Amino acid sequence: MLPEQEQTRAEGRADAAQTDGRETAAKAPAVSGALVISVDAMGSDRGPVAVLDGVQIAHRANPALRFILHGREDELAPLIAARGLADCAVLHHAEGVVTMHDKPSQVMRRGKDTSMWSAIESVREREAAVAVSCGNTGALMAVSMLRLRKLPGVNRPAIASFWPSRNPTGWNVMLDMGADVKADAPDLLTYALMGTSYARNALGLARPRVGLLNVGTEEHKGHAELRLAHEMIGAAQEAGAFDFVGFVEGNDLPSDRVDVIVTDGFTGNVALKTAEGTAKFAAELLRGALTATPLSKLGAFLAMGPLKRMSAQIDPRRANGGVFLGLNGTVVKSHGSADATGVAAAIELAARLARSGFVERLAARVASASVARQDAPSGEASSENEL
Amino acid sequence: MLPEQEQTRAEGRADAAQTDGRETAAKAPAVSGALVISVDAMGSDRGPVAVLDGVQIAHRANPALRFILHGREDELAPLIAARGLADCAVLHHAEGVVTMHDKPSQVMRRGKDTSMWSAIESVREREAAVAVSCGNTGALMAVSMLRLRKLPGVNRPAIASFWPSRNPTGWNVMLDMGADVKADAPDLLTYALMGTSYARNALGLARPRVGLLNVGTEEHKGHAELRLAHEMIGAAQEAGAFDFVGFVEGNDLPSDRVDVIVTDGFTGNVALKTAEGTAKFAAELLRGALTATPLSKLGAFLAMGPLKRMSAQIDPRRANGGVFLGLNGTVVKSHGSADATGVAAAIELAARLARSGFVERLAARVASASVARQDAPSGEASSENEL
Repeated sequence: MLPEQEQTRAEGRADAAQTDGRETAAKAPAVSGALVISVDAMGSDRGPVAVLDGVQIAHRANPALRFILHGREDELAPLIAARGLADCAVLHHAEGVVTMHDKPSQVMRRGKDTSMWSAIESVREREAAVAVSCGNTGALMAVSMLRLRKLPGVNRPAIASFWPSRNPTGWNVMLDMGADVKADAPDLLTYALMGTSYARNALGLARPRVGLLNVGTEEHKGHAELRLAHEMIGAAQEAGAFDFVGFVEGNDLPSDRVDVIVTDGFTGNVALKTAEGTAKFAAELLRGALTATPLSKLGAFLAMGPLKRMSAQIDPRRANGGVFLGLNGTVVKSHGSADATGVAAAIELAARLARSGFVERLAARVASASVARQDAPSGEASSENEL
Repeated sequence: MLPEQEQTRAEGRADAAQTDGRETAAKAPAVSGALVISVDAMGSDRGPVAVLDGVQIAHRANPALRFILHGREDELAPLIAARGLADCAVLHHAEGVVTMHDKPSQVMRRGKDTSMWSAIESVREREAAVAVSCGNTGALMAVSMLRLRKLPGVNRPAIASFWPSRNPTGWNVMLDMGADVKADAPDLLTYALMGTSYARNALGLARPRVGLLNVGTEEHKGHAELRLAHEMIGAAQEAGAFDFVGFVEGNDLPSDRVDVIVTDGFTGNVALKTAEGTAKFAAELLRGALTATPLSKLGAFLAMGPLKRMSAQIDPRRANGGVFLGLNGTVVKSHGSADATGVAAAIELAARLARSGFVERLAARVASASVARQDAPSGEASSENEL
């Protein structure tokens, strides 16, 4: 532990005993060389049981994983014991819980005793490779920015999510989903670089295709800022090792002609929730139709196999996990209402990213594109493909 | 015809013979006292046949309607004759056609000979009560603003659309869907006033509930401009005779706790196309599931009745027609790819609005709210409910 970190920790509300506990706990998994995931066990709409059940599922699927679980000891210790997780998980007591109604600014000022803060702190102190939380998105981003700091060259971090698509992987990547309500043209370029790096590491795409969300595909459409971003992203294709398909529209979000969709966090958040609302409304109507008459009930029964496979294909739990991009460390935000399956999916995504050395690759990509932009004619720009 | 209009018409490329033709044609329906709809017969992705078929359907449903059809005489005359529309429709020849790729600025400068321009001109000259076009949205709005002019008190006109919802009418109203990519707080207030006036006249709601689209429902969320709009719309509830439910999110667009959703045209357009894309993708997956196996095909056959009713319930053709609000005249924009059923729905919407004296009611509502805002304490504001 560096002296600076030592001091920061002392500023927190953690008492001496807790700090000792943390250090001991932290050493155990670190020594073993296993991949350690820091999990905020509180802050889920479904309570710590759903989170611990998710940890259990993820651990069964991948027994090499180790966990640091953050939250109230009296609540968590029995849950850990009951699930036989004592060998793979250590507990960091944190008294406070960030609620969905807490303002990010309040949590930044007074949240040092919370499980969320503690979960991020484990990544900052390199006790864990990556953090997972179901808590309040705004507060989680605020604490992550405060404690992990932004990567060099990143002005606004972003939240990237998977979007169900017609592509072979079944997903597109979209960002920003709401880290910030604004983004200027250089931010949108950074999102393109970070989003393609994410698509390479999470989806295994060698040279992702990037689209910039607008209200039309013609170059004269949209805000002036978007037209500038169009130019900047187009010029960064070689340095960033991606292909730019230009402007895309809302109906292209599930398209197979694009892999990464770039937009500001306000628009991305509205689009995400609009799609969720539309899918939910359509599912309600379908359920109504399939239970409307005895015949349609029989029909639904006969078609149940394919209907269930379809439902699994677009199950939002499979894609659970918005990833915070642009920080010195990876943070995965699970949906607040995620059940155990959803939490496990978020943990597995976190593990995959940690294993691929994602943060270092993303940082190098952003830096190399910045260098290419500033110093080199586009033909000579760095274009290594492995990031 | 007023001298000013005479002169403006002379500026166009219409030759003298054509102008005479228009006047004669215009007088016939006006004398009869029937409701006259001005229809741009060109500019549809499906060509004039779909438009003329739509006119025929609308006329059968409502034989009192009269039409002025704008476009190329050689193409349209045989179509009119073949459908037996000669008694209810007159033809205004216009040589030019606005394509989907024409820039609005080009059409404003050089589009005087087009069917779109001619269709708007009929409303300006009061030959027709309302115009319907399937053409290029940006160009249609530009020509409508140029020729019809904005209503007093309206800075940015808006496009309002129906959105499938859980409400008893089956629809919510949302605006702006893309008339302008920007909107400041006073614009958003105007949208609330215009949108509620539209919901009263098109959906028959006495006191519509208004929501302001944001990325969260808490009052501290979103842009500063949205927080200001929140205040302004909240203060206008009495003068505008609506209830303000505050911020809503993307997943609330089909909600039954709101009737009118207000947002800027960039966000509205992205949300609309995102919902369309999501619904289309879900329908593809459902079709795939219901044809995946012999059993599921049989199941689909048994459930066909309720599935078809569901499909009809959210059929976008039923809701076809974005309405331009805030102009001295009503213009209904039909979807460019609308088929005859869709065109007929747009014409029927246009007729309903014209019959209710919608433009005058909307103008009075915007004016009274402006007066209330400027001159009266909120308690004394005008609150007549009939608009």
